[in-house]
This record gives sequence, structure tokens and C-alpha cells, in this order.
Amino acid sequence: MPFRDLIDFSDIPAGEWDELCSLARSIRRSPHRYSSACAGKILATLFYEPSTRTQLSFQAAMQKLGGTVIGFSDPNVSSVSKGETLRDTIKIVSTYADVAVMRNPVEGAAYAASLYCRVPLINAGDGGHLHPTQTMADMFTISDEKGRCDNLSIGMCGDLKNGRTVHSLSKALSSHHGNTFYLISTAELEMPEFSVRLLSSGDNRVVFCRTIDECIDKLDVLYMTRIQRERFASESDYRSQAGIYVLDSDKMSRAKKDLIVLHPLPKVDEITYEVDDDERARYFEQAENALYLRMALILTLCENYPQKTGFREIPTRPAAARYCSNPMCVSNHERYLPELTFEKDGKRYCRYCEHEC
Amino acid sequence: MPFRDLIDFSDIPAGEWDELCSLARSIRRSPHRYSSACAGKILATLFYEPSTRTQLSFQAAMQKLGGTVIGFSDPNVSSVSKGETLRDTIKIVSTYADVAVMRNPVEGAAYAASLYCRVPLINAGDGGHLHPTQTMADMFTISDEKGRCDNLSIGMCGDLKNGRTVHSLSKALSSHHGNTFYLISTAELEMPEFSVRLLSSGDNRVVFCRTIDECIDKLDVLYMTRIQRERFASESDYRSQAGIYVLDSDKMSRAKKDLIVLHPLPKVDEITYEVDDDERARYFEQAENALYLRMALILTLCENYPQKTGFREIPTRPAAARYCSNPMCVSNHERYLPELTFEKDGKRYCRYCEHEC
Amino acid sequence: MPFRDLIDFSDIPAGEWDELCSLARSIRRSPHRYSSACAGKILATLFYEPSTRTQLSFQAAMQKLGGTVIGFSDPNVSSVSKGETLRDTIKIVSTYADVAVMRNPVEGAAYAASLYCRVPLINAGDGGHLHPTQTMADMFTISDEKGRCDNLSIGMCGDLKNGRTVHSLSKALSSHHGNTFYLISTAELEMPEFSVRLLSSGDNRVVFCRTIDECIDKLDVLYMTRIQRERFASESDYRSQAGIYVLDSDKMSRAKKDLIVLHPLPKVDEITYEVDDDERARYFEQAENALYLRMALILTLCENYPQKTGFREIPTRPAAARYCSNPMCVSNHERYLPELTFEKDGKRYCRYCEHEC
Repeated sequence: MPFRDLIDFSDIPAGEWDELCSLARSIRRSPHRYSSACAGKILATLFYEPSTRTQLSFQAAMQKLGGTVIGFSDPNVSSVSKGETLRDTIKIVSTYADVAVMRNPVEGAAYAASLYCRVPLINAGDGGHLHPTQTMADMFTISDEKGRCDNLSIGMCGDLKNGRTVHSLSKALSSHHGNTFYLISTAELEMPEFSVRLLSSGDNRVVFCRTIDECIDKLDVLYMTRIQRERFASESDYRSQAGIYVLDSDKMSRAKKDLIVLHPLPKVDEITYEVDDDERARYFEQAENALYLRMALILTLCENYPQKTGFREIPTRPAAARYCSNPMCVSNHERYLPELTFEKDGKRYCRYCEHEC
Repeated sequence: MPFRDLIDFSDIPAGEWDELCSLARSIRRSPHRYSSACAGKILATLFYEPSTRTQLSFQAAMQKLGGTVIGFSDPNVSSVSKGETLRDTIKIVSTYADVAVMRNPVEGAAYAASLYCRVPLINAGDGGHLHPTQTMADMFTISDEKGRCDNLSIGMCGDLKNGRTVHSLSKALSSHHGNTFYLISTAELEMPEFSVRLLSSGDNRVVFCRTIDECIDKLDVLYMTRIQRERFASESDYRSQAGIYVLDSDKMSRAKKDLIVLHPLPKVDEITYEVDDDERARYFEQAENALYLRMALILTLCENYPQKTGFREIPTRPAAARYCSNPMCVSNHERYLPELTFEKDGKRYCRYCEHEC
Repeated sequence: MPFRDLIDFSDIPAGEWDELCSLARSIRRSPHRYSSACAGKILATLFYEPSTRTQLSFQAAMQKLGGTVIGFSDPNVSSVSKGETLRDTIKIVSTYADVAVMRNPVEGAAYAASLYCRVPLINAGDGGHLHPTQTMADMFTISDEKGRCDNLSIGMCGDLKNGRTVHSLSKALSSHHGNTFYLISTAELEMPEFSVRLLSSGDNRVVFCRTIDECIDKLDVLYMTRIQRERFASESDYRSQAGIYVLDSDKMSRAKKDLIVLHPLPKVDEITYEVDDDERARYFEQAENALYLRMALILTLCENYPQKTGFREIPTRPAAARYCSNPMCVSNHERYLPELTFEKDGKRYCRYCEHEC
């Protein structure tokens, strides 16, 4: 049984990931061969949080496959503003569509939605938690540009604490071998313990840095991230961290000739304008790759699940007490959700947001 | 001459209603047969008020027929914010489209718009007034599930005063026979006089209830509605009424085995989560039926009116005094509208909002 | 090499303008012949400022050619709110689309965007500066209705100071012959010096008027404009000018039998409701023509540029001082833009906003 919902990058079995990459390359070479592949299919784009990049990319992906798109891009222009549950919204919308993509500021919202969805659901970001199609673009681009995801020196720079893209990328890279990860951040924005543990497992190793300068000459890949205003409690917290890490021509002059610079975009001040014209800057190619991968993903899901499923019977939580200690977890916002946990290394985690509970 | 604009459910002649239902069933059975039926046609969705459900449903309906959609979903992102008249907006947009659907918070806006529209116009809600495609889904689902719309015990519960769906449904059901209507509401939210009169005409009869409990065991159909915050003058007025009527498993245990529960959706607290999994809850099927009926409607209108009409010459009101006493009536907002009234039972009514004037 | 980007009406060489007009007429006669002409192509509509009319018109134009549309209509629902540069947005979006249309409140934004766009870019308004597809509709309608753009008496009325449509139309008409232009405005909203100079060049001549009455009987064309609230510093500045010029039936009774009244729309109070029904009012035809011209334009650009270009290497401005004296100029908002100027008549002008610098 192939995977139906893409909540986390790890939902994709290794073999299917290779097939997705092959398909994405084939689409990149000959887009016209796929221009009717999803004719008559509808993608629902449910964006509870603004994101031009991601939403336009998914719209374009579906349209380039010959399908069409319905959706919203603003929680206020929706029944959400009338107090409807996520469950009801998903039940209805999945009646209209053949595949759905959702972005939501609440952690675990995508997994919760998938329980009630009659069609494949793609997570396009659930708060600070996961963003698997970005990780697909990241992994594909590294592999495409460097020929491998092993034995590389990979820098990650910026907000390593709150940045969901680096957490997701860390998880994906941790199954590869012989890599050295240079984690470049302030003490306040350091990579969380669990990601560091992942990155330093097997024969990979982790080096902590406070500046780009101390490792730039060693890197094969530099993954820059934005310090995201919306993840900070106050403007002053944000201001104190923004602008510390800036990649400029001077730093680039000390980097390897075959370094590649990646960025999930949008970027603000963390990369100076001149660097865009450096051919080692590959973030626009990375964004273009994201388009082909999303096409490959949508096409694969539509082919694997040509029919809607019925509604699954999901037990409702009986007048539940709060069980997940993460206030941002969807289970604390949508109170009907069943209590779901899993155990790992003797600890218990919430199935929605993956925080310890 | 078949009907062109759908302002009120009663605009559909009985014979054409049967044909629409047949077509909707045919589409439900074999959607692929209709996947190019409206190829090259454009639906304009003019939403002056948010409604995910309705708007996505119409978008999906047109796309599943092979057509495309233009439109807006927010009055502020539109020329409306520049002070343009409804008339001008409709004249222009109907030049771009083959069929139009409009939701507007002002009563009578749909009828007013239809005067200036060059293509068929579908009313998707005009304030507290009418919402005919919801009524289509309601009538179709009752008929589909119970095999008839006669000789039934039908409960209507919640905000019967302000709920446009129950008013419109009452009007539609009043032409049927042998029904008993249980009107379940507080004194403050009772069904208006004119709807009660309709429901008790012919051999139908009306029973007033203050609780669900006193009639739940007699019902074949229970039509629940949301207490809508946006229809109340103040938050405290709203709070005093919300939450009075809640359908839960306990009440369902005393209902008939073949009861069907309907709801126009979105719902908030008026139905507990457990009831969703009761197979007598048919509101998600009702929402799916709405999709097929909208497809049938759009297809029928496009076939009946393949060409745009010219602009009709509508006389402009000469420096008119206010004639309609309803402050929410479109004639008091768009002052160029001609004075249009009709007489019934010796009283005079506004043609736009149907209030006595 | 045919033109790729349409920033200003004058970007269209005279020969290509004639071809666009022929194509638009052909589409108007036989729209179905073109219903697959852009199949598989994607138009990106980037609206940083609301405009129902223009955006719906472009959406409909692309869809009537068999293509599809992606885009946004609100700067807040976009990465723009995360501080991304215009350059990055355009680089990414032009990767997804085959042709792009942009409206932006900042002067010169369209030219700036075209530097970074991988596909043809159409300016749908850049602040008070240019709006070439409106000018296309204006010129086409005059020519279509009067058979020529020469030897006419043409009135322009309203906000001649801030109205970009009249400036752009003035420039376009200035290459024609034997016209008399009646400029009807208050002293505060008079046509700027540079437009007056254009209009009075060659054998054309300019007459200044303070009222419609003093010239209405002489006009072949009357181009009315809206006094735009959003172009004024304060509400009281706006109020003092709005409502001065109103075209009504009385004035129309003194006009020529073959006068045509045009208006870029939306209109508010400047034309009374009765005039709409006068057959000399041609603004709805003008709006319909705009649709066919946009179809002709999109089709031509897609045919001329079937492939995306790579990113051009544009030099970044080196830590530049402000060089353009216009605070609304894009070069003062997007600080990486290279300094670009041109000389004319011994003066130096900004290439983006065309103000003297």
C-alpha cells in the first residue's frame, strides 16, 4: 500500500522517494508530456496562513498537470471565522477535491486533518513543526547539485531553534552517512536537542559555530534561513537576533568553488543582493525544483488514489483533559481529537505535534 | 421560456425541478460523463461576504464540468471599495462570464443584480433573505433519503427567526402535503408569522416546541441550524441564545431508527461530535448533494442561455424617496434602483427584499 | 525582435499595434476560434493593490484563450508581508508562469520588475504612472467608434493631475494629427505641464476649460475620469474636488448626436445614472474591448516568447545614495535597483518613474 498522506518527509518510503525524484527529473526535461496527466482532477489549497511562494507553486504544479485548483488563502475569508471545526472543513472540502494541500499555524494540524480527509492530504507547513515538500526540494537539490547526500560538509545557519525547514531537513539527512554538520547560530537560536541528536547519529558529526566565518571555507552546502519575525514573542526579541548572520560577497570569496548556497525563501536581509548573481547561489533553482517535485507528488497521489475514500470512523475524545503539554498543539485547539501518542526510547510523545507529553 | 436567474427556489417551475434532480443524480452516478459539459465557459463568483463552503462548492462544480472560474471573495479586495455601484460591477463582470453566482449581505441584492446581468445569475445568499441552492440541497436530500417530501414529521430547530435557510425551506415544503412541522425555538427566535402561515397551509400542520426532547421521537427529519453570531445586534444577545439547543447522543437514542438529521453547515456547538458518526447524520451527504445540484444547475443555465443578452433598459428611480421600510433592503443602498413592488392579499411588498412596504 | 514587456503603451511599435487591433477584432468576431490558443499556458496576476475590474478581466482573458491563472490580489496575503524584495518575488513567480501581469502602487515598479522577470510582463498600473492596457482599450475604442484618432475634438474631464489614464492616453494621442483637446478641470487638478506640451505638439491644439458646459457641444469624444480618493493626501482635499464635474442628461442634451462618452471605470458620482442608458455612453463597450485587447496581447506575447529566458545579470546599485527625487519611485523603495536614467531635451529623467532627477 503506497503512502496516501504526506505529513512528514519520513512518510515517503525510500524506494518511493527515488521514484518521485526520477519523475520530477522527467517532468523537468519534458513538461509537455505531463500536461494532461491530471486532467479533470481538482486540488484544494487550504491556506490558513499566508504564503505566496508555496501556494502559487502548488497552484502552478496542478495546472501544469492539466488539473484545476480551488481553495482559500486567508483564515478570515472562510467558514473558519464562523467557528467551524477543522474536522468539518476537511470533511466537506475533501468531498469537492481529489487531493488537498494545507498550511496551518497550529502544530500537528496536518496530521489531525488527514484523519478526516477523504483524499490524499499534503502538509504545506503546520506551525513550527513540519514542511515536507520543502524538505523534498532541499534533499533533491543537494542530491542533484552534488550527486549525493553523503560525505558532505553541510552548514545550517540562522534560526535553528524555530525554523521548521532545518528540523525537517535534519531528520531527512540523518539517515545518510559521513556528513559533518556545521550548526551556525546564536545561543538563543540553537538547534534543539532532539535534532542535534539525530544529526550526530551514526557516522555523522556535528560542529557548533557562532559565526559563518569559522566554517565557510569547509562547506559543500550552506543552508541559510530567515530569522522569522512571526516566530518571536515580541518585536524586540526579533530585533536582537535579526541581522546577525549575513552572507555577503566577502564571505563567498573565502568559500569553495563548488559550494552551493540554499535557502527555503523568502529571504530578507540574510543574503546580500550581490550574492544572488554568484552562480553558487542555487536557491532559485531550488525553488524551481520544488515545483517539479510538487508536480511529481500530486501526480503520484492522484494515480495511487483515484477514488475518494469514505469517512473513517475516528473515536472522539471523551470529555478529555489536556494531555499534550505543547500549547501550540492542535489537540489543545480542536478538542474532539482522539488522544494519540507513541512511545520512543521510554518516553511518550504526542502523535500530532511530536512533543513529549 | 426556461428560467434564467435563480433568485428564489420558487423561480424553478415544478417540471424543471424534477429535471434538475434527475440530472444531479445522473452526475452523481457518472461524473466523468459531464467532465467537459461546460468546457470554455466561465463562472463568475461574486462573494461580498465570506463563505468557504458555498464558494468552494461552486468553484468545484464549474471545474468538474470542465469550465473555469473568476471572482472575488472579499468586498475590500474589489472596486466596491472605490464606491462603484452594484449595477456597474454586474454589468462589467457579466461581460466576462457565462454565468454568475453572487453572495451579498444586503437583502434583495440578488434580484437587483439580475436586472443588470447579461448572463444567468444565481443567488448564493442575500442577507437574511434567500439562499435557493441550499434549499435545492435540502429538498433533494429529504426526497432522496425518505423517498418523498410528503406525509413526514419534520423538525426545524435553532434560529428560526433569522435563519434564511429555514425560511426558504419552509416556502418550498409548503407546496407539499400531509406534513407536520415541529418548530423548535426560544420565544425570541421563533419562526416569523409569514413562514408559519405557509407551513400550516393546506393539509399541513405546525406544532410549536421549546425543546428537542418533546418531539425527537416523532421526527422523520430533523433540520438543525446554527445560531448565527453575525445576525445579532450585540454579543450578549447572541450569547443568551447560543447553546440552548444541542443535539447529542442521548437525544439521538430516543429518535426513530430512520430519522435523518440535516444541517446547512457550518455548524458550531449545536451538534455534539459523537453525532457525526451516527449514520442518521446526513449533513455531509447533504453537502455533497449540493455539489451535484449546483453542477446540474450551472449546466442547465449554460445550455439554456448559450449567448449573453444585451443590457436591458431598466428605468432609473427619479430622485426617489425611500419607499421600502426595510433598512437592510438593497433599494435603500443602491438608490438608482427602480421602485418595484407587488401586491398580495391586499398588501404591498417590495419586489427586492419581499418586506411589506 | 518583437516587444517582450508592456510597461508603457509606447512600447508597442506602430505596426504591432495595428496587428494587435486586428487580432482583437478577430477575437471579438469569433471567440471560439481562440479558445485553445493558450492551452497549457499560465498567467500570473500579481496585484499589490485591489482592482476587481482589471484582475477579473485578465483572468477571463487568459481563460478564454484556454490558459490558466495563478496569483494574488492582496499584498498582505503574500510573502510581501514577510519583507521579501520585489526582485525575489518576480524571480520566483516568473519560474511558475508563462506571462505575468502586475499592479503595484509604487511608481516604476513594473519596469523594475521586468528586469528580473523570466517571462513577458504586462504593467496593469504602477501608482499614478502608467496603465497601458487601459490606454489600449481607450485608443481602440476611439478608433473603432469614430473610425480614426485624428481630426477629433476630444474632451478630458476630472482629475487630470493625478489620473494615470489621461496621462497615458495623452501620450498615445499626441502622435496623431489635427486634434483639439479640451482639458476640463479645476486649477488644482490641471493636466501637468509635460502632458500639455505633448498634447499641443504638431498640429494638435489644447483648450483649457473650467466647465463641461463650455465645450460639450463641440466634442466628438468625452473622456470622463473619477476623482480618486486614494490619490489625495487627506479626506478634505478629496472632498473639495469630488463632485465638481458631473455629466448628466441635461448636458448630454446639448452634445453632438455622435459624441461618444468614455470612462476607464470604476465610476462613482461623475456620471448620473440616466446617462448609462444613453447610447452615446460607450464605457461598457470600452470595458468589453479591453477584454479582447488583453486576449490579443497575452496571445501575442505567448507566441513571441514560448520559452522562459534565464535570469538577466542586472548590476546591483553599490550602497547608493537616493538619486531619484520622487519619493514614490520604486528606486527609493527597492534599494538594490541599479541607477538608470535617460536624457531628453537636456534634462535627466529616472528610467523607472520618468520623473526628472
